This record gives sequence, structure tokens and C-alpha cells, in this order.
Amino acid sequence: MKEEKPSLFTALSPALLNLYDVSSSIVVIIDVLRATSTIATALYNGAKDIIPVDSVAECIRLGKQIKGITAGERDGLIAEGLSHGNSPFEYPTEFVDGKTLVLTTTNGTKLLHMALDSRAKGIITGSFPNISAVCDYLVAMKLPVILGCAAWKDRINIEDTLFAGAVISRIKDHFYINCDSSQLAETMYQDAKEDLYEFMKVRNASHYHRLSRLGLEKDIRYCLTDDVANILCLYKEGKLIKEVI
Amino acid sequence: MKEEKPSLFTALSPALLNLYDVSSSIVVIIDVLRATSTIATALYNGAKDIIPVDSVAECIRLGKQIKGITAGERDGLIAEGLSHGNSPFEYPTEFVDGKTLVLTTTNGTKLLHMALDSRAKGIITGSFPNISAVCDYLVAMKLPVILGCAAWKDRINIEDTLFAGAVISRIKDHFYINCDSSQLAETMYQDAKEDLYEFMKVRNASHYHRLSRLGLEKDIRYCLTDDVANILCLYKEGKLIKEVI
Repeated sequence: MKEEKPSLFTALSPALLNLYDVSSSIVVIIDVLRATSTIATALYNGAKDIIPVDSVAECIRLGKQIKGITAGERDGLIAEGLSHGNSPFEYPTEFVDGKTLVLTTTNGTKLLHMALDSRAKGIITGSFPNISAVCDYLVAMKLPVILGCAAWKDRINIEDTLFAGAVISRIKDHFYINCDSSQLAETMYQDAKEDLYEFMKVRNASHYHRLSRLGLEKDIRYCLTDDVANILCLYKEGKLIKEVI
Repeated sequence: MKEEKPSLFTALSPALLNLYDVSSSIVVIIDVLRATSTIATALYNGAKDIIPVDSVAECIRLGKQIKGITAGERDGLIAEGLSHGNSPFEYPTEFVDGKTLVLTTTNGTKLLHMALDSRAKGIITGSFPNISAVCDYLVAMKLPVILGCAAWKDRINIEDTLFAGAVISRIKDHFYINCDSSQLAETMYQDAKEDLYEFMKVRNASHYHRLSRLGLEKDIRYCLTDDVANILCLYKEGKLIKEVI
């Protein structure tokens, strides 16, 4: 008997998420530069959990209430009133171990709340630093998948697309993929995989330039590196937690 | 003195069009399989003009009123009540010469009306059969450009993305391009250009499969061929007309 494979779709922008059947799917929130890379890193380094919130005001309010670390950026810089930004290097073990982060970002948090509102079957975050954990989880779950790129204010970006392509290239045999956006993403990843950093630079990725102007080349290189914080980041009851699968 | 180049953006889906400054731009409506390929072909073969309309009902009403040819498809087939479909081969010179087509399609017409509502500075249609005319026009106009992919019910598709990439690869030196979607499209085109048909097939393009199931391989091959109906299709006062530039 032929086994039916679950479907896999890629939404290259939050503005395209609701074209897909979110409610029957696991949604992977992808915000490579830098939110989901930082989430994986902080949890990997021992943070107890991470609470994603919509606004800077809510971040400050909740951070104060629960004595958590307030973290977040707006347009690539630490948001005013918060104690920390969106760089994975701000969250080493000696700082985050056992603590709660309250996190707000430009694009990633918005997409996460869209997935929640659409009653996704499950939500995880994905980034190159935890790509193997993401892929293992998706294959093990045997459920439909939507790779949701956070993009930049709804504009498609290269780095999130590359990550979607990287995931697809690893797990495609386990899914039924009738989705041109997924094909696009994988084609680009195959083109870029020898040197993702160089590809970003040459292809003039708008976000690469925004961040490199801010002196964040080191962050970019880290955020494009496989499995340096290889844990699963699962959204559960309002929090992102590290989950052993 | 350095000459300022106009910007170029690509909207890979109608759902993304309004992220860009449509009102200052020329919008290229791209619906490779098959609306804009058929528009170029019918005008090239001598059709007087083409009136794009939203609905099948309006197509029938207007077609009767002006004694035009009613043409259009829904989901790849001739729409019920219309006399002709959306295949370029239905519109040879001996049939269309001097006549008016009233055309409704699933995706292309919708995008055109969005561009109109947003008061685009100019609207043309683009397809491989008239790619050189499109590129020459865009370079000559020296205005900002938005390449607008009609997509499939807002889902990004490979063929429209490939055409955007083909245009970009030809004219990029004349524009300032800070747009990851454009980079994506060009990367894919560079990958595919040796054999677009084969690329479509291998990459499992959803629309390729929809049409090939309907026996339309010949249409697909034609719609991926450069300059076989190389005229400019300009939208002017409610009509698409052939324009000499």
C-alpha cells in the first residue's frame, strides 16, 4: 500500500501565509537575520523560555512584571526602552542560563501571531543554527508543513528563502511538494549553498546591506551556519521552549 | 554628474503589489501561461485592440454589445458562455485581423485592475513572445518599474517569476535594483535559461502540470519562446493596443 506523504508549502512572505491551510499544518517561523537564530541560540545556551510579544511597550511591561530580560529590535537596532537587542552574541550561557527572555522583533513575532490566529497545529522556529533539529522534527511528525518566511515588512527576502530551500533540500523525499515557491527556494539554495555568505553579498541582499552597514558581519556569518545551536524551539502556551524530541 | 537610475521591483504575487510605489511606476503585467502571451500574439496578428474585463458575465455582455470576440478561461479551460479560450493558437491573423477581443482570465485581469486602481504611471503586458519590445520600452522610458507577476490565485508561480528574471537579466544595468524578489527571479532564470521548458517540467511547476494534463504542451513551448510576437502591448483608456515605440 502506498503511503500518503504530507504536503509541504512555503509562504515566502507573511502576506502569503493565509493562502495555505495553516490550521492543519505545522508552521515553521523563519527569521534568519536574526530573530529565529537568536531564539535558537538563547535556548541552546540555557534560557528557560522566550516569550514573544507584539510591541515594545508590552515587552517592557511584561519584562518588568516577570523580571525577564527585555529583548528586541526595530529596524535592526535595539528598540528604545529594552535592555538587549537581537544579536545571538548577546545571549551566552553565563547571561541567559535559567532566565526568561521577553522578545519583540520587526517581522518574526508578527508572523508567529498570524500562525497562532490561524490555529496552526504546531509552531516551531527555524534557523540555520538549528536546522537539523527542525528537519528531524518535521520528518518525525508526519504532518503537513508550512515554511513561513518572516520576510521584511512583507517583502520577500533572500535569507529566509534560502533557509526554506535548505530545509526542502533535506526533507523533500518525505513530503508531497506541489508548490512553486518551494521550488524557487530550493533552486536558489542549490545555487547558493557552497557559500551562503558570499551569495548574500553578491546578490545584494537588502538585509545583508542593512546589517553590514551596522557592523554586523559577524552576526550574519553566524546566522548562516548550520547546527551551532542545534535544539528544537517549540511554541507552547505562549512561550518558546527547548524541546527534546 | 552621476545619473540617477530609476528603481526596479518585482512583485511575485498580486498580494504583494501594494508593497511598492505603484503610482510612480510603469507596471508590467506578467501572466506567461497564457494570458499575456496570447495578448501579444493576438495584437501581433492584427487584432485592433483587447478589452480586459473582470468577469465572464461582463465579457459576454460587452462582447455582444460591441460585436467583439469573447475570450477567456477559468482554471485553464474556456469559460462557459465565451466563444474562445486563452490559447495563443486560437488567434491567427485570418481570425483576429481588425477585430476587438474582450478578454477575461483568472489572474492577469485581476492584477491589471489592481495596477489601475493604484494609478500606475503606465501599464504594459509582458511575455516571452514580446520580451524584447518590453525591455526596449522599459529602458527607453527611464521611469521606475514594477514587474507584476499575475501568479496563480495569489500563489507565486515559476513561469511568471522566470519571465521577471529574464527581463531583469536584460535590463538590470539601466535600473537601481534593491529588491530580493528581483534577485530571486534572476537567479532562477539564470539557472533555467538553457531550457525553460525542461526546467518547468523538472521543477514540477504546478501550472505546467495543470496545462499538460489538458494537452497543452504546444502552448507551453510557444509561451516560453522569445520574440515570436514582438510588439509592445500598452494599456490605454480601457484597452490593450499595439504601440510602435
